[in-house]
Amino acid sequence: MMEKILIGWQKQPNKLNIQGEIEEAIKQITKEEKIELIASGRTDAGVHALGQVANFKTNSKLPVEKFPIAINSKIKKSIVIKSAEEVSEDFHSRYHCKRKTYRYIINNSKYGTAIYRKLECIIPQKLNIEEMEKAIKHFEGEHDFKAFKSTGGNNKSNVRTIYSANLKKDNDRIYLEFTGNGFLYNMVRIISGTIVDVGLGKIKQEEIPNIIKQKDRQKAGKTLPAHGLYLVKVEYEE
Amino acid sequence: MMEKILIGWQKQPNKLNIQGEIEEAIKQITKEEKIELIASGRTDAGVHALGQVANFKTNSKLPVEKFPIAINSKIKKSIVIKSAEEVSEDFHSRYHCKRKTYRYIINNSKYGTAIYRKLECIIPQKLNIEEMEKAIKHFEGEHDFKAFKSTGGNNKSNVRTIYSANLKKDNDRIYLEFTGNGFLYNMVRIISGTIVDVGLGKIKQEEIPNIIKQKDRQKAGKTLPAHGLYLVKVEYEE
Repeated sequence: MMEKILIGWQKQPNKLNIQGEIEEAIKQITKEEKIELIASGRTDAGVHALGQVANFKTNSKLPVEKFPIAINSKIKKSIVIKSAEEVSEDFHSRYHCKRKTYRYIINNSKYGTAIYRKLECIIPQKLNIEEMEKAIKHFEGEHDFKAFKSTGGNNKSNVRTIYSANLKKDNDRIYLEFTGNGFLYNMVRIISGTIVDVGLGKIKQEEIPNIIKQKDRQKAGKTLPAHGLYLVKVEYEE
Repeated sequence: MMEKILIGWQKQPNKLNIQGEIEEAIKQITKEEKIELIASGRTDAGVHALGQVANFKTNSKLPVEKFPIAINSKIKKSIVIKSAEEVSEDFHSRYHCKRKTYRYIINNSKYGTAIYRKLECIIPQKLNIEEMEKAIKHFEGEHDFKAFKSTGGNNKSNVRTIYSANLKKDNDRIYLEFTGNGFLYNMVRIISGTIVDVGLGKIKQEEIPNIIKQKDRQKAGKTLPAHGLYLVKVEYEE
């Protein structure tokens, strides 16, 4: 049977091989020699995942609902399997993925907090939130996002559709949330960096459509650090 | 001059001596040999602090607003000085403290999350929130909280006043928040454990006034772990 599992993990200082760790646990549980875990896509190194999805094939007779607790008992606590379900034999976590949602968390206070310092990006300078709200809206729609990717990703096309891009503010925290059909290498971190540059007055929000059109990485903002980025949700068609 | 500083810190796996670390930094900055940092009170080991307050005396000519950045540059990143202000010579963080607010965070989901596992207490069983909301209200007011303290604290009186005790729910998370004139050793963790026992059906909410009256630790709920507890705020009279 084919199993689809929902995974969350925390960024690790030492490179934690999440795929390898989960595969090893599944091998022990199923007593199968070959388990291949296929995730919905590679996330940037250091990103937190609240809801990654992966699939694997097994002949195990263990009921599917027993897999999360069985896997969780064998893996590091910085990874959690949240649920598992049986899916059709042709299901593929990456190919069949329809929408992904990423969130970037900014703490806009002078010193941030000790507790959440590894879970958000501290920007101590004053930010113009109204301009940032206008800026983020320019990213909605189908665009060639070449200006917003780091070299290293090898996608044939840089065209992606962002279905929604929203800014929410809650006291000192600013949440930038993006839902799209796919994201290029470092794309969310560069878009977020560009929106922050608008907040700082370094880039005018009206210039963003032009920056997108020019497809020049140098014109976009800087790449914000990975530890503020979360893969929130991966969605499939019913 | 007397300085009052606002501090936040993250629970550390290895016992981090927060007072000693900050005192050492202040000694370097002021070039004074004796700096004594007086906090608003000892918090249980392992508790997160969003807003602890401490004071110290110095003859330093450094402007008070420069202290936070100066201290932050010398201490571990798991401690943050958020602000500093000059106060009257007779100010005392502990004696003059009027109100403290603590928060206990529960994640009421099957496996919790990898990311926040050290920042909240996971309770996987189904909880009756309505009963818990009634339960928490019994703790408001002036009571002898002997049934809700661990041995080890050596207070003369166990009478404390809780000005407000509230439960908030946000998806899987339950926040228990208490503001009072003081708290006994482990008191918030034992009260929270008692409220969870009500949610689990082990204790009836109507019994709580009696449990308070009986002053028997055995009748109250279990002590929840420290990593779900936050010192949110310490308040003084203007």
